[in-house]
Amino acid sequence: MFSKREYLGEEQAEAVFQPDGRRVKIRAMSKIIDAARDAGLDIQSPCADLGLCGRCRIILNDRQIVTDPTENELRSISKHDLEAGYRLACQCSISKSGSIVITVPAESRVSHQKTVIHGFMPPFKVSAKVSKVVIRIPRISSSKSIIADSEILLDALKVKGCKNMSLSLDSMRLLPNLLHSNSNVITALIWGRNTVLTLEYGDRHDRLFGLALDIGTTKLAGYLVNLITGKLLASSSLANPQIAFGEDLISRVTYWSEHSDNGRRLQESVVIGVNKIIANVCKEAEVSQNEISDVTVAGNTVMHHIFFGISPERVAQTPFPLAVSKSFDVKSEFIKMNVNPSAYVHAIPPIAGFVGSDTVAGILATEIYKSSETSMLIDIGTNAEIVVAHNKQLTCCSSPAGPAFEGGRIEHGMRSSNGAIESVWIDSKDYTVGYHTVNDAKPIGICGSGLIDAVAQMLKTGIIGRNGHFDTTKKTDRLRTYDGKTGFVLAWMKDTGIAADITLTSQDIQEVLLAKAAIYAGASVILKRLNVKSEDIKQLYVAGSFGTYVDVTSSLLIGMYPELQYDHVRFVGNSSGAGARMILLSDKLRRTADKIAETTRHIELSTDPLFESEYTKALWMPHREDKRFPNVMKMLRKH
Amino acid sequence: MFSKREYLGEEQAEAVFQPDGRRVKIRAMSKIIDAARDAGLDIQSPCADLGLCGRCRIILNDRQIVTDPTENELRSISKHDLEAGYRLACQCSISKSGSIVITVPAESRVSHQKTVIHGFMPPFKVSAKVSKVVIRIPRISSSKSIIADSEILLDALKVKGCKNMSLSLDSMRLLPNLLHSNSNVITALIWGRNTVLTLEYGDRHDRLFGLALDIGTTKLAGYLVNLITGKLLASSSLANPQIAFGEDLISRVTYWSEHSDNGRRLQESVVIGVNKIIANVCKEAEVSQNEISDVTVAGNTVMHHIFFGISPERVAQTPFPLAVSKSFDVKSEFIKMNVNPSAYVHAIPPIAGFVGSDTVAGILATEIYKSSETSMLIDIGTNAEIVVAHNKQLTCCSSPAGPAFEGGRIEHGMRSSNGAIESVWIDSKDYTVGYHTVNDAKPIGICGSGLIDAVAQMLKTGIIGRNGHFDTTKKTDRLRTYDGKTGFVLAWMKDTGIAADITLTSQDIQEVLLAKAAIYAGASVILKRLNVKSEDIKQLYVAGSFGTYVDVTSSLLIGMYPELQYDHVRFVGNSSGAGARMILLSDKLRRTADKIAETTRHIELSTDPLFESEYTKALWMPHREDKRFPNVMKMLRKH
Repeated sequence: MFSKREYLGEEQAEAVFQPDGRRVKIRAMSKIIDAARDAGLDIQSPCADLGLCGRCRIILNDRQIVTDPTENELRSISKHDLEAGYRLACQCSISKSGSIVITVPAESRVSHQKTVIHGFMPPFKVSAKVSKVVIRIPRISSSKSIIADSEILLDALKVKGCKNMSLSLDSMRLLPNLLHSNSNVITALIWGRNTVLTLEYGDRHDRLFGLALDIGTTKLAGYLVNLITGKLLASSSLANPQIAFGEDLISRVTYWSEHSDNGRRLQESVVIGVNKIIANVCKEAEVSQNEISDVTVAGNTVMHHIFFGISPERVAQTPFPLAVSKSFDVKSEFIKMNVNPSAYVHAIPPIAGFVGSDTVAGILATEIYKSSETSMLIDIGTNAEIVVAHNKQLTCCSSPAGPAFEGGRIEHGMRSSNGAIESVWIDSKDYTVGYHTVNDAKPIGICGSGLIDAVAQMLKTGIIGRNGHFDTTKKTDRLRTYDGKTGFVLAWMKDTGIAADITLTSQDIQEVLLAKAAIYAGASVILKRLNVKSEDIKQLYVAGSFGTYVDVTSSLLIGMYPELQYDHVRFVGNSSGAGARMILLSDKLRRTADKIAETTRHIELSTDPLFESEYTKALWMPHREDKRFPNVMKMLRKH
Repeated sequence: MFSKREYLGEEQAEAVFQPDGRRVKIRAMSKIIDAARDAGLDIQSPCADLGLCGRCRIILNDRQIVTDPTENELRSISKHDLEAGYRLACQCSISKSGSIVITVPAESRVSHQKTVIHGFMPPFKVSAKVSKVVIRIPRISSSKSIIADSEILLDALKVKGCKNMSLSLDSMRLLPNLLHSNSNVITALIWGRNTVLTLEYGDRHDRLFGLALDIGTTKLAGYLVNLITGKLLASSSLANPQIAFGEDLISRVTYWSEHSDNGRRLQESVVIGVNKIIANVCKEAEVSQNEISDVTVAGNTVMHHIFFGISPERVAQTPFPLAVSKSFDVKSEFIKMNVNPSAYVHAIPPIAGFVGSDTVAGILATEIYKSSETSMLIDIGTNAEIVVAHNKQLTCCSSPAGPAFEGGRIEHGMRSSNGAIESVWIDSKDYTVGYHTVNDAKPIGICGSGLIDAVAQMLKTGIIGRNGHFDTTKKTDRLRTYDGKTGFVLAWMKDTGIAADITLTSQDIQEVLLAKAAIYAGASVILKRLNVKSEDIKQLYVAGSFGTYVDVTSSLLIGMYPELQYDHVRFVGNSSGAGARMILLSDKLRRTADKIAETTRHIELSTDPLFESEYTKALWMPHREDKRFPNVMKMLRKH
């Protein structure tokens, strides 16, 4: 119970935020996350302070002057961690005066380090859908000319080779003032061949910018490009704010179904995130939001539908049919994006319920649609999309890999950002661990590429068997038991940026096995259906944002995809973002993307009995059938 | 000074509204117009109670318990009338308790009688720009089909002959729910040949409606039509609410220029009026506002520009160039009209600064563009637009007739509605006056056709001379002097619906002369430029809403237009509204209208010296040069 004076918030606590050493006064009833913000500290909160995402963990030295843990905290923080002083900054408030030390661990901070969001992009000719034409208006003797303003503009455009143009309402509204200003130079923004979207004072031909968006379930990424040079000016990524309505696709679709207004909420929520990205990239590149004149959007199908306010309900139900399968353009103002209100937003078309326009973009960026050789693209995310190009036909599927490679359901899992262990090597004699982290920061977790390395190295050194179980006979103090779970220590607490060892538990290894088996089985089903042998694959592109670099040997050792020649594997990073940029930069490739979406064949795995059997057989490393991985087996036997 | 109790509004006055005899209690500080509304009496207030339009005149029997006249009242009510008890209901409040009789004269009431807003319309084939297609969706086994919803729809449309269709965002959003509802019948609203605007449940093919709008400076008129049968279902007219920002075009343009926000205000104001019309016609015809699927807009050029939010500033300055000269279509939601948000609003193109799309509509409705004979159209309003069709070429001008024929600047002038004197005859011996009123109501004023008749009859009977001056030697008690002004009594107070004689003053007659001279001179300039003689005109169409019927003899007697054979004159009413309906009902005529606007030649009168001289010579009746009106002169000499 608070006294009236306390209730009115006049009580204050003295707080020190560590490791920054920032000293502040916090009024009673204030949330710690708000106090941290006031102190200039950026704490992660993709769920918008709702206590749902568990990303704003802080460590308190004293529990006396704070409120009791909420249900959300009890759900997301283990007993052990709670006792160690962990709390959620968005749930925990100061309840009375006193002093407190609040540690904000590295994993809870918003990392300003850029995450790897750039994908490989082949060369192509830049020729955007929008263009600018600078026109010089003959000096109008305003007391004599009776030519309509619109005719003066259309005539001047004709001189520049722009014929049969139609004017948007916006340009008609701007025209009278522009035409009779002191300047006789006007820049017209043109969409396609025949539409004047808007007009500007003076010569603005060099200010033509576009935004490519990659809308992921977990992450949004935006790329600001110069539409004339094709140059990438800035990029930014952000947690998808829809996380507040559910972590995964299915829970968001469920939320959509629950109330007629929820669809609008989900749509607005992702646009809020996109608008933050726009603010970020515009600030960085010193471009005004109004100068963004075209937008392309790639994303998985559910995200694509929700982004445009189209129901994803059936997309998420067997047999996962699309609501909309073609590309389309809508005015940015209809979806309230902070770009030029005259600009159109281009929806890259999806292929199937679980093979979205992000895959179409990836196919475009890797150019496997052009290849005369058999090629494969695997885009690893919560679902892994697998595409095989064979005999000029594209065939794809989506396999439920789960979130392991993105850091989900892994004790110390994280995305590939500052402090993530991204590669691991283990000494086969004394089991010493070497690792490398993103930006050489103190390790705070492990990302997808690190996981693959760690599991492969543990397999190679015999710490785990081919079924992923620990060999507890190995003599190393790195094999330990925490809270009843066996784990292998990758980094000792003293070396980490968190108040704990970074370990890999048997549960973590099983998650990796489930994930890799799903990817392998998906790829295997396509190859069998097409009667293609794994050695026929002349190029495998691996896409995804699970690490800057996945070791090919490691990925083959764990049997993540069919065995093929090591030098046939190429990591292309975020190929979806790269493809969205290409579609933004080339009207011709926009049409190519439409054709890719229309002609790619899709195999539905969820109802395919072959997938089930392939999956089960792939739950070993590299595989239950040794003959499928002859070279890997050779290597393993060497050890 | 009020006591506190009075100030709090607890004082009440006992009021009786006459002639209704309605008895009410009015709280102190209440405006009389509000009290009247509470009593169910509809008082005109086109200026939205701002005290600007002077249309809400009431007569009080006592000035003791009301507030003093405001500046607005002093400006709009003559001293004489103020003394007679006239006040403005929107300005005058009850100040203390007592009892009062409030007379609401007929001219201040909102007339629920329909005014003449229908014009002549020739026969044509109905084939609207929008259409509805009913499609039957094959029963979808939702557990099997993986065909995208959009493909199912497009395939079903193809079966109905609709190919290469694109879907609006609206239809994409509606599609999933519609396709998987219990009904397997969907109705698609299609715009042109290739765009699905929106979708509806079930078979709604017979619910296809459109709205034609005529946006006048003073009056808005709307026509709700069935787009399949072409039938007019309801029409409604209303004072243009922009009157609050200025009575005439020029004052509205001035208002637009005064502040950057004023354009938006003017635009929103007219849309508020249009939305009232929509509510009216929809209620009358039992049509939902959402069922209005297409809109056409005709209006003078300034009204056209303002309606779409385009600056009219230069349109109103010499040499009056247009901002936009072509037709265009904008989504109704951009201008916040209460129709189906997917619907487009079609702007009929204007010809010149003072020859608007209303004239284009009039040309279409009278079909003079088709005529192989020489024809003329005169549309009489504050500006009279005159069009001559000669040798397959249309030539037009706009002449500043002034508001006389619409009731403006005439002591007892009014528009053609309930109680307006619309025709007049005068006995040549005893000067007895006979008249006819709209709807046979008690006379409350005189409209355009009545004015023309009255002046012609006064000329014929010698009460006035050819210069319009009274012959005060005539012996009749109808020639009287009021407030120093000479006038001729058309209706004695005892017979009228107002508390006064209805007279025509010498000032009124001069206004009629100014108006008719402008019309004659405009017509004359075109004929001279084209080298056409008046007797070559085989058809003269007179349009406008100044009366159901203008007497041809009277109009020729006063010399309103060049002398031609009486049976060559035809009154066509509101040809602008009729044309807007035709353009709504026929996509082919929409293109014809575009061509009319593009090819009609325009003569600017304001800088034409010939107009000046023609105008001066026409300030006599019928004309200073007798030889121009041989037949009229013959008739006058007979008397």
